[in-house]
Amino acid sequence: MNKLYVIGIGPGEYEQMTLKAIHAMEKSEVIIGYTVYVDLVKEHFPGKEFLTTPMKKEVDRCVMAFEEAKKGKVVSMICSGDAGVYGMSGLMYEVGVNYPEVELEIIPGVTAATGGAAVLGAPLIHDFCLISLSDLLTPWEKIEARLLAAAEADFVVCLYNPSSRKRSDYLQKACDLMMQYKSPETVCGIVSYIGRDGEHYEVMDLKTLRDTKVDMFTTVWVGNSQTKEINGKMVTPRGYRNV
Amino acid sequence: MNKLYVIGIGPGEYEQMTLKAIHAMEKSEVIIGYTVYVDLVKEHFPGKEFLTTPMKKEVDRCVMAFEEAKKGKVVSMICSGDAGVYGMSGLMYEVGVNYPEVELEIIPGVTAATGGAAVLGAPLIHDFCLISLSDLLTPWEKIEARLLAAAEADFVVCLYNPSSRKRSDYLQKACDLMMQYKSPETVCGIVSYIGRDGEHYEVMDLKTLRDTKVDMFTTVWVGNSQTKEINGKMVTPRGYRNV
Repeated sequence: MNKLYVIGIGPGEYEQMTLKAIHAMEKSEVIIGYTVYVDLVKEHFPGKEFLTTPMKKEVDRCVMAFEEAKKGKVVSMICSGDAGVYGMSGLMYEVGVNYPEVELEIIPGVTAATGGAAVLGAPLIHDFCLISLSDLLTPWEKIEARLLAAAEADFVVCLYNPSSRKRSDYLQKACDLMMQYKSPETVCGIVSYIGRDGEHYEVMDLKTLRDTKVDMFTTVWVGNSQTKEINGKMVTPRGYRNV
Repeated sequence: MNKLYVIGIGPGEYEQMTLKAIHAMEKSEVIIGYTVYVDLVKEHFPGKEFLTTPMKKEVDRCVMAFEEAKKGKVVSMICSGDAGVYGMSGLMYEVGVNYPEVELEIIPGVTAATGGAAVLGAPLIHDFCLISLSDLLTPWEKIEARLLAAAEADFVVCLYNPSSRKRSDYLQKACDLMMQYKSPETVCGIVSYIGRDGEHYEVMDLKTLRDTKVDMFTTVWVGNSQTKEINGKMVTPRGYRNV
């Protein structure tokens, strides 16, 4: 069977890749991805053939990867973070039904939720939800219902895609919804450019987050009722009892 | 400032560690962790001093790490998966208030949710929740409320600590609760010994999961309304619309 790796490269810096991801890319003849991520890894894998497709051409990118693998080449499809978290591995299985001769191997990576959490301190620790605020493929009503459910059940919430040019007020809307159940004093945090040049974090409360402008390179964490600030870091305890 | 690394070593195998984690452990003089995880990494870091404490002695383990760092040694505290997901990094910040001379650096790793997802196929992909079924530090009523909220809002749910000797029927209870909102046909998966000898996965529906016995080395995924089985793998699409 022809082998096709689907690889999560982590936040971006080479050091945050797993050995397994590095070895798979070293074994590959062709490395395919979104332009930005290919540019991040290129220098570390000399002599490879790099192919890219722009944003919103994800299906084309998958077909490209399977076509290269079908020719008998060892191929890696790379994603930022983890390929299974708002990444390409699902679509690869869907497109893959047309390529029974190609075997997929998914190689996990550090996703923004945990990569950024390490920068902020320890915001997750306990039960948490990941919610993307992008309504490109998901109706906004569904996103609203999830924000409310997560807030009511006192989950820590990590928001992916909190903003874009077309959706500049979505984070504000999301905070307003969560404040129906979460205190405006809830400890929150944002991290931009996780693991890349310009990495930056801030810890603030939920009502301040509501009025904070973030860009598409920012990930957002909203604490649970127990989350606190310790020496400028965002920290969630491991439970509701002390033992 | 004395440096103390808190490291997520990933699922267990050396290949799934990040370069950053490996380099921090190589720089360390002392490596501290729960016995099982220290045994997993020991052979790869010869010449280090290894210290362990048993389960439920987490506070002692943290104090031990800070005391070693206070002496001026470079110390790594290791956790399986990611140190910030049901791991030690939160407690380290809490204990750390007594050790202002020690600086923590958290190094993220591949957590079971994404590590096991890669084995199952692509079960997460879209919005998901992590819920631990352990009621040692969290009242069961809180866990119930989260299971119901997550099911009602159609999240993919990943269950950590689905079972133990004392809680052998908790997974069954959790499935019954989620079936108030999720179809009994919902595609689910389990993975045991992720990234270790004996790794094993199964894809099944929610009503079958309800009657499946799992052990403490198993992680469980419950799909959303769109999750499907493709060639024996568990795959969640990236949204609710095709574009």
